[in-house]
Formats: sequence, C-alpha cells, structure tokens
Amino acid sequence: MEKIKIIMDVDTGIDDAIAMCLALGNEKIEVLGFTTTYGNRGVDRTTENTLKILELTGKTDIPVAKGATRPIVTPFEEGIKSFIHGVDGIGDIQPPLPAPSIKPLEISAVEFMAQTLRDADRPITLVPVGPLTNVATLIMAHPELLPKIKEVVIMGGSTMQGNRTAVAEANIADDPEAAYIVFKSGLKIKMAGLDATHKGYFTFDEIKELADKNRIAGTIYKMCDVYITHCRDRMKLPGLAMHDSLPVAWLINPDLVKSEDYYVTADINGRHTYGMTVTDVHRTLNEKPNVTVALDVDRLAFIKLIEDAFEALS
Amino acid sequence: MEKIKIIMDVDTGIDDAIAMCLALGNEKIEVLGFTTTYGNRGVDRTTENTLKILELTGKTDIPVAKGATRPIVTPFEEGIKSFIHGVDGIGDIQPPLPAPSIKPLEISAVEFMAQTLRDADRPITLVPVGPLTNVATLIMAHPELLPKIKEVVIMGGSTMQGNRTAVAEANIADDPEAAYIVFKSGLKIKMAGLDATHKGYFTFDEIKELADKNRIAGTIYKMCDVYITHCRDRMKLPGLAMHDSLPVAWLINPDLVKSEDYYVTADINGRHTYGMTVTDVHRTLNEKPNVTVALDVDRLAFIKLIEDAFEALS
Amino acid sequence: MEKIKIIMDVDTGIDDAIAMCLALGNEKIEVLGFTTTYGNRGVDRTTENTLKILELTGKTDIPVAKGATRPIVTPFEEGIKSFIHGVDGIGDIQPPLPAPSIKPLEISAVEFMAQTLRDADRPITLVPVGPLTNVATLIMAHPELLPKIKEVVIMGGSTMQGNRTAVAEANIADDPEAAYIVFKSGLKIKMAGLDATHKGYFTFDEIKELADKNRIAGTIYKMCDVYITHCRDRMKLPGLAMHDSLPVAWLINPDLVKSEDYYVTADINGRHTYGMTVTDVHRTLNEKPNVTVALDVDRLAFIKLIEDAFEALS
Amino acid sequence: MEKIKIIMDVDTGIDDAIAMCLALGNEKIEVLGFTTTYGNRGVDRTTENTLKILELTGKTDIPVAKGATRPIVTPFEEGIKSFIHGVDGIGDIQPPLPAPSIKPLEISAVEFMAQTLRDADRPITLVPVGPLTNVATLIMAHPELLPKIKEVVIMGGSTMQGNRTAVAEANIADDPEAAYIVFKSGLKIKMAGLDATHKGYFTFDEIKELADKNRIAGTIYKMCDVYITHCRDRMKLPGLAMHDSLPVAWLINPDLVKSEDYYVTADINGRHTYGMTVTDVHRTLNEKPNVTVALDVDRLAFIKLIEDAFEALS
Repeated sequence: MEKIKIIMDVDTGIDDAIAMCLALGNEKIEVLGFTTTYGNRGVDRTTENTLKILELTGKTDIPVAKGATRPIVTPFEEGIKSFIHGVDGIGDIQPPLPAPSIKPLEISAVEFMAQTLRDADRPITLVPVGPLTNVATLIMAHPELLPKIKEVVIMGGSTMQGNRTAVAEANIADDPEAAYIVFKSGLKIKMAGLDATHKGYFTFDEIKELADKNRIAGTIYKMCDVYITHCRDRMKLPGLAMHDSLPVAWLINPDLVKSEDYYVTADINGRHTYGMTVTDVHRTLNEKPNVTVALDVDRLAFIKLIEDAFEALS
Repeated sequence: MEKIKIIMDVDTGIDDAIAMCLALGNEKIEVLGFTTTYGNRGVDRTTENTLKILELTGKTDIPVAKGATRPIVTPFEEGIKSFIHGVDGIGDIQPPLPAPSIKPLEISAVEFMAQTLRDADRPITLVPVGPLTNVATLIMAHPELLPKIKEVVIMGGSTMQGNRTAVAEANIADDPEAAYIVFKSGLKIKMAGLDATHKGYFTFDEIKELADKNRIAGTIYKMCDVYITHCRDRMKLPGLAMHDSLPVAWLINPDLVKSEDYYVTADINGRHTYGMTVTDVHRTLNEKPNVTVALDVDRLAFIKLIEDAFEALS
Repeated sequence: MEKIKIIMDVDTGIDDAIAMCLALGNEKIEVLGFTTTYGNRGVDRTTENTLKILELTGKTDIPVAKGATRPIVTPFEEGIKSFIHGVDGIGDIQPPLPAPSIKPLEISAVEFMAQTLRDADRPITLVPVGPLTNVATLIMAHPELLPKIKEVVIMGGSTMQGNRTAVAEANIADDPEAAYIVFKSGLKIKMAGLDATHKGYFTFDEIKELADKNRIAGTIYKMCDVYITHCRDRMKLPGLAMHDSLPVAWLINPDLVKSEDYYVTADINGRHTYGMTVTDVHRTLNEKPNVTVALDVDRLAFIKLIEDAFEALS
Repeated sequence: MEKIKIIMDVDTGIDDAIAMCLALGNEKIEVLGFTTTYGNRGVDRTTENTLKILELTGKTDIPVAKGATRPIVTPFEEGIKSFIHGVDGIGDIQPPLPAPSIKPLEISAVEFMAQTLRDADRPITLVPVGPLTNVATLIMAHPELLPKIKEVVIMGGSTMQGNRTAVAEANIADDPEAAYIVFKSGLKIKMAGLDATHKGYFTFDEIKELADKNRIAGTIYKMCDVYITHCRDRMKLPGLAMHDSLPVAWLINPDLVKSEDYYVTADINGRHTYGMTVTDVHRTLNEKPNVTVALDVDRLAFIKLIEDAFEALS
C-alpha cells in the first residue's frame, strides 16, 4: 500500500509535538518535510522545537523549513500563550531536550512547499496545525501549484464556541485573513476543529499511565504538565485535548471521524468576531459547501493510534 | 402580593401570540400596554395581530401603541419570514380571527413607553420579544427615564448557533445596532435566547392535545400548523419552541430558568456575523458581565404555565 | 414676508455661539427653540452655554431643551476638544459670562422637537450644527413626524479631508451612526461641510476689527482668542472659520453658497474611516443624490451677515 | 554613473505601456525584469501586452514573469475597465501590435522577484504600477529578502478623492489588503498617487503633436485614442494623465516631484471606503510617517522625459 505523503506545517507546542510523533510513528504516513510558523510561540522557538522533536524521535533526515514570522494583517504577540505550552513552548521540562544538532533548510517554508509540490509526481497533502499563514502565502505566490495539492487537512476553527475568544479558535484567530484565503481557495479542505478535537482527549488518568510505557511516551508525559493545568483548570475540559493529532489521525483512518460538508469562511471584519469560523450549519448563505467539518471522533481508537506511534518510535 | 408591571414589546407572530396569552392569563403579571414593532411581519400587520389577540382574549382595555417600521441601520424585508408564521403572521387560519374593533393609540410606541414610565411610581419591566428597535430608541430619546426601567427581559440572542443565520438569532439579526445599544445601556438585562428557548417546547404530541382543551388553546392550536412545519421539518427541533413565552415565564417563576451572568454584545460589523450575540463565555474580553443569560429551562413546568394561562383566559 | 421657522440643535462652543447670534439677529429667521447636545463639550456645559448666549443677546424667551448625552454607538470623550473652545466651551473669558437665570425645559430635546413639529401648521426647518444624535433619535422615535420637517440644514462633513482625522469632520465623527440615519432618512438635506466652511472665515485682521464695533461683537471677540490659536497655529487656516454659521446664512440667502447634489453617506465600519462622509463625487455608487452639498461661499457677503446680526442684537 | 536597477510590476494598459517606454528609454534606469499582474485587464492579457511592448521597443531580452491572477481577499472583475484601456488593454488599435514571439518565464512573478533579489549584490528598487498583490505576496513569502529591497515606488492611492470610487484610487481598490501589507511592511515607500499624477499630463494638444515625432510615439498616440475619451469626457481632466510614468520619472529625477512624508494605510473594512488610502495629513493618528507622498510634479519637465524616451527607443 502506498503511503500518504504529507507536508506538515507546525508551530510546535506540546500537542504539535504529539501530532508530529503520530505522523512519524505511523506507517501509513510519509512526512516529506515540516514547515514552521509562529503560533504557539514565535517562529524561532517553534522551529527549534520542531528540530528537537525530530532528534527525540530519531528522524533527523526529514527536512524542516522555517516560515512565517507573523500574520498577514493582524499583529502577533508571542507572550499570550506561554501559560498553555510553557515559555519554551514544549513544557519547560527539566532537563530540557538537548539543543538540536540539525538545522532548518536555507530556503523558506513557502519555497520548500513549492519545490516539493513541483517535483512531486502525485498531488501531496498539506497538514497545517497552526495559523494558516504559510499555506495562504503558498496559494498566493504559486497559484500554478494548486493542482499539486491533494487536500488540506487543518487543525483549527469551530462551528460553535472558540477557545481564544468566546467565538474564535486560536489557530484561525492568529491569522484570520490567511484562513479566509485558504477557505476560498477552491482546494479540497478538511477541518478538524474544536467540535471534534474537544472530544479527542486522553483523560487525566490515561495520560498518567503513559509515563512509564516507553521512552517517547515518558518524555511527552513530562511535557504535558503545564498543558494539563491549562486543560483541566482553565478550560474545564474532561481531559487533555489532542487537537493537532486529529487531522493526522483522520488521514490514517477516515472512519475515526464523523463529519459533515458545510460552507465555511473566516470572519475578517467584526470587532469581537474577527477570526471566528462561520460555518453555515443552517445552509442560509447560498454558498456551496467547501469544507468537510469534523464533528465527532472515536476517542478510544484515536488515542490508541497515538499510543501506538509512541511505541513504534521508542 | 403585588403584580409585576410590564410593557410588552411584540412583533406579533404565532409565538408572540402565545406569549401574550401567558402574560394576560397569569395573575402575577399586569400588562400596562403592548408596543408593536416590525419583525415577524411588517408593523401594520403585527399591530393588527396584537389587537386581534386582545379581542380573542377579551382584554380590549389594554392599550396598544404602534412602533418602529424599520431597523436603525440595516434594511428590513417583510417577505422573508412568511414561511414561519404565515402570510398574515398568525398562521393564516380559516376563518381568520375577526378584524379588531379596537384601535392602537394615537401616540407612538416610544412615546407610550416614555409616558408610562414617567407616570409610574415604581420602576417597570420591559419585555421585548421582537427586534429591539423600540427599546433602543426609548433609551436614546429618554435617557432621563432609565432609572424608571426595572429590568429588560429579552427574547433573543444565543451563546452558540443562530436560527436566522449560522450564528445570528432572528430578533437580534433584525436590528443589530438596537441590540448593541440595549446591551451597553447599563440597564439590568435578562436574555432568554436560543440556548434555553430551544429547550422550552411543546412536543408535537403535546401541542396536539391542546386542541380540545379550551377555546383559546383550540384557536392557538390551529395557528400553530405552519409553525409546526417550520420547527419540525426545517429546523429539526424536537417540538414547538415557545421562544417568546420564556421571558414572561422567567418573570413569573425565576426558578424555571438556569442562567449565568456574562458580558454580551451584538456584532455590528462582520459580514457573516452581523447581528450575532457575542457572549463572553470564556471571560476573555475583560468586560464586566452585563446580561443574565438563560441556559436551560424546566420544560414541563414551563409549558404547564402556558396551558394554565390558556385555561384562565377561556 | 414670512420668517423661516427653525429649531437649532447646538453643542454650544464658540462658533455655535456666533451661529446663534446670526440666527437670533437676522430678521428672516425665527428660532422656535434650541435643542442641545454633547459635542464641543458635554451636554451640561453646552446647555449652560446656550442659556448664557440667550442672556447675552436678551433672547431669554426662546425655549431650550437639553438632549443627547452621548452618541448612539461610539463612546464620547469630553476632554479632547478643550483646546479648541476652551475648558468652558466658550473661550474661558475673564470675567466669564454670568450664570444664566433661565433654565432648560423639563422635557427632552427629542420631545421638544416632536411637540413643536406636531403643533406646527407648516413644516419646520431643523438646523443641527453639532453631532446628529438628537435628529437621528427624532427620526427613529417619531417616523410619523417626518412630513413636518421641511429640511435639515447641517453643519458637518466634507467631500475631501476632515478636521478630526485625516478624513472625518468632527460633528459626523462624533456620531457616525446618527449621520448614517439622517442621510438615509429620505428627508431633504443640505450639508454645509468643510469644503465650504473652510472658505467662510474672518481673516485674523477682520476678527480683530470686530472688537470695538458693538457690545456683542466685543464679547464674541474675547471668546475667539483660544479659537484663533486653533485655526491659525494648529489648522493653518487663513482665518477664523465660521463653520456653524454657514447653514444659517445659507437659509437667509441661498445665493451665498455654491452647491451640488450628491449621494452622501457616513462610513460606520472602517477603522480609520469611521465617521467620514463618503460623497459620491464620481457618481459610481448607483445611488440617487440625497444631499445638497455646499462647495463654496461668498466669503465677504457671509461675514457681513454675521456682523449685521451682532449689530442688530447690540 | 551607476544605473538604478528596478523590477517593474505592470498590469499593462495604455499608461503602463508609456511607463515601460520611459523606463526602457532612459539611460539612468536598468530594468532587470517585468512582472505582471491582473489589473487594467486580466493577467493573461496584461502579460501579452507587456511582451508586445517589449517587441515594439526592441527590448526582447528583458525577462517577463507572470504573476497574480486575482487579489488576496476581494474578487476581481476584468470587465469593468475595458472602457479605459480598450478590450485588449492597449487601445484596440488597428492593425493590432503583432503577437509576440517571446514568452514569459516558466517561474512565477514572486519567484522571479525572489531570485533576482537574492542574487543581487545591492538592494533593488521595485516599481509596482498596478495592484500590489505581487509585492505583498513577495513580502509574505520571503521576509528574509526585505533587506534586498532598496525602496518601493508605487503608482497608486490619493490623499483626497479617488478615481475608482469617490474615495478610492483604482490600483489600491483592486487589492486593498495587498496595499495594507505593503504599507505596514517597514520598507521604504514612495507613493505617486492621484494628487500628483493628475497634475502630470499631456494636454490633448500636446499628445496630438506626438503622433508624427517618431515611430514609438506614433504607435503610442494611436493607442491613446480610447484613453483620451476617458480622461477628457468621463474624468473631465485637463489632459492625458501619465499615472504609471510618474514613479519612473521620480526615480530618474527626484527634483521633479514635490512630496511630504505621512503615515499612510489602506482601509480594509469600510463598505464605501474599502481600498481608500488613508493619509494622516493632520497627523492625528499617532503613527510614524511610513510613506513619502507625491503632491505635485513639474509637468513640463515630466512629459519631456517621456518624449525623450520615445525618441531614444525609436
């Protein structure tokens, strides 16, 4: 069976790190490269974190290209998210992961994506799990390469409430215009948003059990400390949401996810709704559905995939 | 025990008619007058419907003052809602309710509210169950009368999805700027929105049982025909939502409703979010709560109140 | 010849005071009353200033009704304009004008306008020279009285640059939504905006010559001190712009003003353009002209009218 | 003396064609390449037109890279501008210019700009005379190359009225978000907008005299037929505005242009102001000047430069 070839666009915080492990540790996926973006932290930190996770997992041959330093229109503040992922973005564990010996490519994220797409003999899947700036810029800079993109499987958005604000999910809120561009691109899009990712969690007990299973799981468990506090005490969630892993799992096993096709756009005007994904659930906007929206996930099967990947990598 | 004195602001469609019956048929409420607004239909029709319901219930001594013909900023189209409430706004029953022998006052809705408030020795409760244009205009034209308003108990809004569009509830969407003005007025506000009103319904069987109970219930049941189609077939609701009755019931028995205090505003800018109530459920906006938001309702106790009012009026 | 009956809506600062003198001192105009609004200063101060000018001119029989304390949607800050009109709004002269012995009416500005319009046998002209909040509220609260409004002659707006911001004139910027409501009301509207008012000035020499002409002119000259600094040093104008007098003069002698009919609306959305009057000078918006826009004024004839009024009142 | 190296970004209509001639025919300028964009016409037509002008002027060795097919956020309609530049975009002359024998590069406009900048030993000047989509995309895709951009000299915008709408100039109105990105990029920017370009014209007599001067001038004169109709009859201009030539002339001889430094941004929100350049002429926005804005031009010296270029190329 042929592997699913993906470029994964990450702003490596804790759940990005887990999603990287899932993609790297599952035999159905072939990661052609990681591109990085500001998001959970600034792009210098997220790039370094990406390299560190590659070293941790021994996948140092996979290229990493550094991307967007800031959103298209709106300003970016690195500070606001340190309480979710820690100051270093991957849990401030002690001792920290060793400084990476590998380096990012000389070329930028957009250039790497463009070259990889251009050189590919078959269309490639993009899996952005941070703000959509790199993907939007690729679409604008290389309209000629759109046919080489098989689909875009996003972590982001929500049909209901948000997690950054009352109505906006964090990845979309970070760069609403980028999301707007991606949603109207005509590309085939899957959106793994909060409707489903809030149902795709390790319970706090389950995550504890990970600690002693194997080397990777043990390290990840240590990282999760600050993130547990966030999910349990601040967000009042029933467990540790594996947001960024969901699009990867959806690719591995489409049956894991219950979804519906809707018209989706990102609000780019409203004072309090800027960055909200408007999902036309009542089909009142007279627009053709452009996004397959994840609504639910088979939780146990989902976390099993992640545990298996940790095992495979260890 | 002293009755709760209210002015009820209605755009009399079917569920407004039921809410009128609830207010008129419950001994804890004293309706000082009805003011009318465009909304479910144009204001000429909703005014006539209001008069018809007063004749039906024999309450022809209660004054009716005609109000806003259109929203503050956005245009109004009467047409779009005929499939919910019928062309005449109260179910197109045959034979129709007789033409009313009573007439509205000479003075406008805003003037009636102003006079009533000014003459009152104690603050009065406003119960707007349509677009908020009249109440917003009152606030602007008579800032000196705000202390005479005890509270405003609104049917409208939602913390989640809408019913006009994916995100906007119909009453707020009809006049977003009016809602914006009311929410920031500093008045004490209760909002009975879709979170709760969608849980406050007669099942389709229960509504059927109403038919033979008494004269008023029988007439109301006939009106509900077109509205049943809307709730069941179009909105896929489990029953007939009694939206406009909820604020009245909340006044009669506060224990019926589960609520939470939040900061709420209406979006007045976004292309797809215009008219959405933004409820700061995650408390990220650094604003003091200004609205008590209904989140759930004791369904059986609620519809019992309505049935009792039909009985009392018959 | 019959006099032109007007209600003048003022936020009495220095040039409002002069415009009041022009209206009160010209035999073609009959002022039925003054309504007041926040604007150059808060509404308490502008109301007091209005009463003081009536005492100064001996016209204490003309009613004054206090109006809006704040704009419809946007917040109001009194502070920002003290450098134009002085802290007291009328030039901080020493000794100050005596505290007025007369009082405003008990009823609000909107109620006074409504009563006056309702009681009038012929349509009346409104002359708002501050933010348009009162007029917009009147339109919303009393749609039935629109036929009793002959025309609205506004000081405000611009087809080009602004004076509050690069693009927004101060009166419109104070309450953009109110302007939006007035412009789309269907009323007959004349707009004396910056295009013309910046051409309707006393040179700094001419204003100096006023000082000794008569009692009123002498007092006004003293008030103008702070305003001269503003016009000359901050705005780099060639003289003292008589903004608020222009709509009054336009009524007295229509030949004074060169104008053109255009479609005009107020921007209520843009971050930097909020409160700008968009004048469709290239007729690209496919809208019917709704406003007669003043573009030029016969400067010498204009200031002669003002001087004559000072003389008549002294 | 070293030549000024530029990449010129064109949406070749008539005045772009003239601007190309000015750049190609003046010895102080070295054009490293032309990039194309939709704008006056769709990008396929503007690219073909660009190639045709290179053949007309014998400069077929200069590379052309095809760029943006549409704006970042707003839709593009090719149709609306055919009355300005003709259906083919360069005046529908008979016989038409011959089909070009040369072709555009395989790589996209953004890629060509990136390669050229990367390979340059000194910073290069960008001269965009159409919508700013390509430049904005370059900024987003290649933040690492910003230090290689010497300055951006734009044709577009206005501090006053527009030519597309009452307030918006056509190039900025075509892609407001792109302009927003460029203005806030931190790059050194010069803006040759309507304030100056409307003063930089051939009178209708002067353009007629061009016809027999030389081969290039003769061809250009034929093209100008439809554009003369537009400038004279529709825009009521005193002559044929040489919009796109002004940034080139400004580079050749900075003394030609009178300018002022202001803070400039593009409105990306307002209904009627979308695409307007807001120039902080009163310095009320508390922002540092980011653009040198052309306000006037030495008309005769300017058109002399253009005539000389036609002569040099013939």
